[in-house]
Amino acid sequence: MKIQISEVGPRDGLQSVATVISTQQKCRWIDALADAGLTEIEVGSFVPKGLFPQLADTAEIVQHARRRLNLCVLALAPNLHGAQNALDAGVHKITIPVSASDAHSLANLRKTPEEMLKEVQFISKTVALHNSRPESVRVSVEVGISTAFGCTIQGPVPEDRVIRLAEACAHAGADSVGLSDTTGMANPTQVGRLFRRLRAELGDRTGAAHLHNTRGLGLANVLAAYEVGVGAFDSSLAGLGGCPYAPGASGNIVTEDLVYMFEAMGVHTGVSFEGLLQARRILSECLPSEPLYGMTPLAGLPKGFAAPAR
Amino acid sequence: MKIQISEVGPRDGLQSVATVISTQQKCRWIDALADAGLTEIEVGSFVPKGLFPQLADTAEIVQHARRRLNLCVLALAPNLHGAQNALDAGVHKITIPVSASDAHSLANLRKTPEEMLKEVQFISKTVALHNSRPESVRVSVEVGISTAFGCTIQGPVPEDRVIRLAEACAHAGADSVGLSDTTGMANPTQVGRLFRRLRAELGDRTGAAHLHNTRGLGLANVLAAYEVGVGAFDSSLAGLGGCPYAPGASGNIVTEDLVYMFEAMGVHTGVSFEGLLQARRILSECLPSEPLYGMTPLAGLPKGFAAPAR
Repeated sequence: MKIQISEVGPRDGLQSVATVISTQQKCRWIDALADAGLTEIEVGSFVPKGLFPQLADTAEIVQHARRRLNLCVLALAPNLHGAQNALDAGVHKITIPVSASDAHSLANLRKTPEEMLKEVQFISKTVALHNSRPESVRVSVEVGISTAFGCTIQGPVPEDRVIRLAEACAHAGADSVGLSDTTGMANPTQVGRLFRRLRAELGDRTGAAHLHNTRGLGLANVLAAYEVGVGAFDSSLAGLGGCPYAPGASGNIVTEDLVYMFEAMGVHTGVSFEGLLQARRILSECLPSEPLYGMTPLAGLPKGFAAPAR
Repeated sequence: MKIQISEVGPRDGLQSVATVISTQQKCRWIDALADAGLTEIEVGSFVPKGLFPQLADTAEIVQHARRRLNLCVLALAPNLHGAQNALDAGVHKITIPVSASDAHSLANLRKTPEEMLKEVQFISKTVALHNSRPESVRVSVEVGISTAFGCTIQGPVPEDRVIRLAEACAHAGADSVGLSDTTGMANPTQVGRLFRRLRAELGDRTGAAHLHNTRGLGLANVLAAYEVGVGAFDSSLAGLGGCPYAPGASGNIVTEDLVYMFEAMGVHTGVSFEGLLQARRILSECLPSEPLYGMTPLAGLPKGFAAPAR
């Protein structure tokens, strides 16, 4: 068994940190993540200029990260303009946030979910055109359905709505569609039920589970998604980040604890725990005033712990 | 669906806190736990005099707690002498720690697991005699197999050893036998596998899952146990406590997060989240310098959250 971990710290994490760190520091952090064995990293976002000064150097970061072999370089783009910039910079994968909650969508993206569907269509067509050129490195498009498990503004989000929106995104051309617990409201029963439905509709085009640890249920929710066949999980080193537009929502899944859980279960992540600790040291040098989350780094690996043979 | 939560803070939690709090404060704390709807509380231990000054008033605490209706008053006793004192004080349930690791058993109890089995036999016989008296309130005996998922001293603990020891404890007369992740080394796959085996051997005499959050996997491990049919879970308010004899082991499951997870999943706990917050305030007054763990108390219940109908 093997799962894919997508490290979202350099985008999702940094987005909620006011400190602007240098391009050089960011490259060192991303290099350490790749050295640890992470094969997919969300390195930044292509959003309107000035929105996130801490991510203004995303194009440079993409160009740096692309030099790593076996690394899928991911960036967020909320619209066609951003996606075009992402393609120009040379990303391997574009992730588009589409919110299942009207209120969250308007607050976060200033567009309704239906307007975002149009963006998914435009971006997918542009990417397909890019991919059709013989000299192109193939780029894929993933949609993450935000507030899929509840919204801090509107409250519960109907599950049918989430599944229909995910289907519509796939129909609009996204290669894969994942579900995000943007607001930390998910519970294991709900996670299992929604991902089971998503897999029934989308099969192999089911995207990543992006789960938060806001109420301590992060890894239990991961387990529930894994048990219904989800094979890709977002997390961030030291749990950096949250969603600045979802008040009270904080706490990405901690990559260190996620890797430890799966390796202990005998599920390959391809990620070295020691390598993550090294990346954690670098992150703490880059962002000395940010709290670092995660319990396995404090407790250490258990005595006699053996990761599964590779 | 319904599960039983056994609150272990006043014994397991307090045991690892140096501060001695007054009997009156302890009674206030326990009353608040019972007011929150907890129906089983481990209120103290009957161990050799002087070992834990903070638990020296256990007999008085038992007498106080017994006055609560619908509350199962539990105390730990590691030997016949302690069990006799527990019976004299009027407990409803005696829990006996039996370690699956020789090294941990000798360090913690100064007896081998085989010697502890003898104690289980003596205690069970004494309790049976007590129960045979027509005027007695029925007392039950539960064994908790410590280090069932690994030992910080000896490392991995063979699963066959754990299951055989559990069977032997049941054979020696214990009403139920649970498994304890004393050292925070358990992972969901292992928890599922061991409890499935335990249930296959013991059926209804399967005891509680006592899991720790040392490496952040606490609730994922709870979920794994629940999924194979375990219906009783130990936890402590604010995550108070660990095991003083298992270096590096800390972090009981947090009652607040555990209750939130199950209620969100639609599984009845009978416990009020608001009531737990009230008990948490009282605990912080009793132990102002202890860190309080748990994420749901900080994040609050999600917007529109509705606990299952009772």
